[in-house]
Amino acid sequence: MEGAFTDVKKKTTESGSYVNYLFVMVGLPARGKTYISRHLARYLQWIGFKTTVFNMSHYRRDLHGPTEAEFYDPTNTESMTYLRKLHLTVLDDALKYLEGDGEVAFFDGTNHSLERRRAVLSRVAQETNPPIVVFIESICEDLSIIHDHIENMDMYSPDYLNNDRDTTFKDVNQRISFYRRDYKTLTDDEGLSYIKVFDLNHRVEVNNIGGYVPARIVFLLMNLNPNRHEIWFTRHGESNYNTKGLLGGDPKLSPRGEIYAEALGEFIRGDSGLSEAAEGFDVWTSCLRRTIQTAAELNHPTRKWRELNEINAGLCEGMTYEQVAEKYPHISAARAKDKLRYRYPAGESYLDVVMRVEPVIMELERAHRPTVVVAHQAILRAILGYFLWKDPDSIPHMSVPLHSVLKLTRTAYTCRVEVYELDSEQSPPRIVRGRRVVRAQSLGPHEPVQNYVT
Amino acid sequence: MEGAFTDVKKKTTESGSYVNYLFVMVGLPARGKTYISRHLARYLQWIGFKTTVFNMSHYRRDLHGPTEAEFYDPTNTESMTYLRKLHLTVLDDALKYLEGDGEVAFFDGTNHSLERRRAVLSRVAQETNPPIVVFIESICEDLSIIHDHIENMDMYSPDYLNNDRDTTFKDVNQRISFYRRDYKTLTDDEGLSYIKVFDLNHRVEVNNIGGYVPARIVFLLMNLNPNRHEIWFTRHGESNYNTKGLLGGDPKLSPRGEIYAEALGEFIRGDSGLSEAAEGFDVWTSCLRRTIQTAAELNHPTRKWRELNEINAGLCEGMTYEQVAEKYPHISAARAKDKLRYRYPAGESYLDVVMRVEPVIMELERAHRPTVVVAHQAILRAILGYFLWKDPDSIPHMSVPLHSVLKLTRTAYTCRVEVYELDSEQSPPRIVRGRRVVRAQSLGPHEPVQNYVT
Ligand SMILES: Nc1ncnc2c1ncn2[C@@H]1O[C@H](COP(=O)(O)OP(=O)(O)OP(=O)(O)O)[C@@H](O)[C@H]1O
Ligand SMILES: Nc1ncnc2c1ncn2[C@@H]1O[C@H](COP(=O)(O)OP(=O)(O)OP(=O)(O)O)[C@@H](O)[C@H]1O
Ligand SMILES: [Mg+2]
Ligand SMILES: [Mg+2]
Repeated sequence: MEGAFTDVKKKTTESGSYVNYLFVMVGLPARGKTYISRHLARYLQWIGFKTTVFNMSHYRRDLHGPTEAEFYDPTNTESMTYLRKLHLTVLDDALKYLEGDGEVAFFDGTNHSLERRRAVLSRVAQETNPPIVVFIESICEDLSIIHDHIENMDMYSPDYLNNDRDTTFKDVNQRISFYRRDYKTLTDDEGLSYIKVFDLNHRVEVNNIGGYVPARIVFLLMNLNPNRHEIWFTRHGESNYNTKGLLGGDPKLSPRGEIYAEALGEFIRGDSGLSEAAEGFDVWTSCLRRTIQTAAELNHPTRKWRELNEINAGLCEGMTYEQVAEKYPHISAARAKDKLRYRYPAGESYLDVVMRVEPVIMELERAHRPTVVVAHQAILRAILGYFLWKDPDSIPHMSVPLHSVLKLTRTAYTCRVEVYELDSEQSPPRIVRGRRVVRAQSLGPHEPVQNYVT
Repeated sequence: MEGAFTDVKKKTTESGSYVNYLFVMVGLPARGKTYISRHLARYLQWIGFKTTVFNMSHYRRDLHGPTEAEFYDPTNTESMTYLRKLHLTVLDDALKYLEGDGEVAFFDGTNHSLERRRAVLSRVAQETNPPIVVFIESICEDLSIIHDHIENMDMYSPDYLNNDRDTTFKDVNQRISFYRRDYKTLTDDEGLSYIKVFDLNHRVEVNNIGGYVPARIVFLLMNLNPNRHEIWFTRHGESNYNTKGLLGGDPKLSPRGEIYAEALGEFIRGDSGLSEAAEGFDVWTSCLRRTIQTAAELNHPTRKWRELNEINAGLCEGMTYEQVAEKYPHISAARAKDKLRYRYPAGESYLDVVMRVEPVIMELERAHRPTVVVAHQAILRAILGYFLWKDPDSIPHMSVPLHSVLKLTRTAYTCRVEVYELDSEQSPPRIVRGRRVVRAQSLGPHEPVQNYVT
């Protein structure tokens, strides 16, 4: 029983078995269906669910190639027959995924007509173990928001790569009006479980929904925020435990760590550019002395989060890895085998840490100004794993070096990390950007969700 | 810095100061406004917010006495003037509370007309530090639900104490139709932040809302469930640490603890009546050996929750209270001074435990069958503190004896705890209900929220 492996709070049936979910996106073109499904999928994968997005436009582009608006004319029987078939092909793939080891599938298509939605429901009803179906409709009639969207589509959609702005606008608007002919918003009469989001997340409507997964999703949707401010991350300066290779504890900074704290203070006040941010910025630390001491040189109010405390090594706190290997060889072995799920006896696993830092993610998603997060190795791995859409199993192996500052920049579909190494050998400290590594992770809609590689 | 006191994740302004909330209930009579505000208040108080419900009917009964339906006739100018004034009196008290040390106030009245809601908004606007105003409207047109409600009102409302069923029905329906004349549902055009719940929680609409507190509230509303199944609680059997008075760790059961495990198994299978529950029941444990071993004798599938693990005593794990007092006198002293908020160095406070067990509460709220929870002293204090609406400061001092089973029964406004002591001295174990303590905590609408006494 010691050091058991972790199970996430998955929705279980009364009989104790797991339930799968099929989330079906609904909405006219350029309503953020892809944006929403990808963000929710990233989140659910991160908290431990095997999740994939099945995007109808990707299938259409792969199997058929680019199209123009006329293709979507409801009176064009040939293309309508094609699209009706394609719709079922994508759905079948999603259901096959859920019959296998998949736990959550997003069906990212317009699903705008009663006919399409009925096709989904009757196909799902044929399954032996049908997933729970939840529709997510995005509604937006604010022209300025939609124009922004189309502007962005221009940038990313291969259908429009070679067009000028006006041609794109005309074509997208034409598509939208074709879709509008059969479009029916979800209603209660259909007896469905659904979530509707209006104008980004100005209004959220939740109908006939219960359960852990949908509730988490509503929570995230309410917090998603189109203003994506930069986030700065750093580990605490070197501690007296780091110098001895000891795990955990609540040590103070080493002399070298103190120099880093000074260097960090100077960097944040100076080269980071943060002091010029009109809206100001926030500083968060854990409740442990080494992060509080590291942030002290910023001379800035800080918020102390227990959720940012380092992973709890339980029995192994205060030991070196070598001592653990010697005294508890089974712990070292089990941890090497599954570092994500292995839980230290009377301590935590990485997956425990993920669940624990989740409220921090929610706060970062809804933050209205830049944030500096001073935390610990395992914690920053968990947080960066979320933003960079990492395969959960790779999270415990991500590199988060000491004495470096990571700057995360987000756009709708992209996260970029820049690494600033600060020189903490010299006193008085000098900020040296000796190496400036730039790692980019595109969350663009053309890559299958399965690709997490950075 | 060692063993700092805890701060809950309160909503802070950009400048770092706290924001207060005024939740304004909206709805016709018998729509569950009181039910909702009391449940939400209990929850928010539990997670650390100073919270009070200001109920307009209580004020009216105290200041004016019982009324009949005619009192609510909109053409009755005298009573309308009275109610308009009373409305502002209640609001003023809520605002005074928020100007003082209050953090969240619920204004539990009908607030059904545009006029009443405008009165609220213009009064709030005069505050130097106005709270954030969020309206919560309960809508229900399902006659069978409303009849159930009225049936219940009959039972609890002093206005109807001496009436027969028919008179009550007639009077409540008359009141409802008077209120309906000026009733306007909340709309987006009013530019307000609001939550609407339809038919209990069949549908939830969330408009123009952000922030931690409202998001938590929506989450709870989605999970509230009118079927309140019984919940059974027990601590693990005596462990090898209990016998030595050691804190924390991951010990096995003592021989006496093993006998309790057997006694518990027999009790749950037999006298508890659980095995007759048509829908079956669930068993939850922590991830520590002593609860898993205790539940093993139930021969029933179990769900292991890390959230149910005992409070983490950090530095003090494995020590006795006496050793702590000797080695770390400042810890003992600080903990004695504020046991709720004192956080063990590199460990947890009771308030940390409250935040950690919150997902368990959500699961218990939405459970669809009885649950047996095998956990630890501090954990059960936190959970029972929620259901019994305990003053947070009293939570760390609640009595949860070893080798006893607690049965929690909930109705709309009441929670009752029965304590079964099991004899674990004898072998083969015999279930002895030597003492059968019954503690009742009424959450009835007539008691001020400030009364937590059980
Ligand atoms: N909630 C949102 N916050 C920020 N940006 C958004 C949001 N929703 C959509 N967008 C932006 O709008 C653009 C179009 O969104 P998206 O591609 O997701 O639309 P879609 O509904 O999938 O369209 P299509 O039906 O053509 O696939 C994207 O550039 C996206 O960044
Ligand atoms: N969501 C709910 N789940 C279970 N019971 C409910 C719910 N909402 C209301 N009820 C029941 O309905 C009855 C009436 O509810 P409540 O007293 O809260 O109504 P109210 O809107 O406050 O009425 P009034 O305006 O007369 O004060 C109560 O007995 C309550 O138990
Ligand atoms: Mg799309
Ligand atoms: Mg009431």
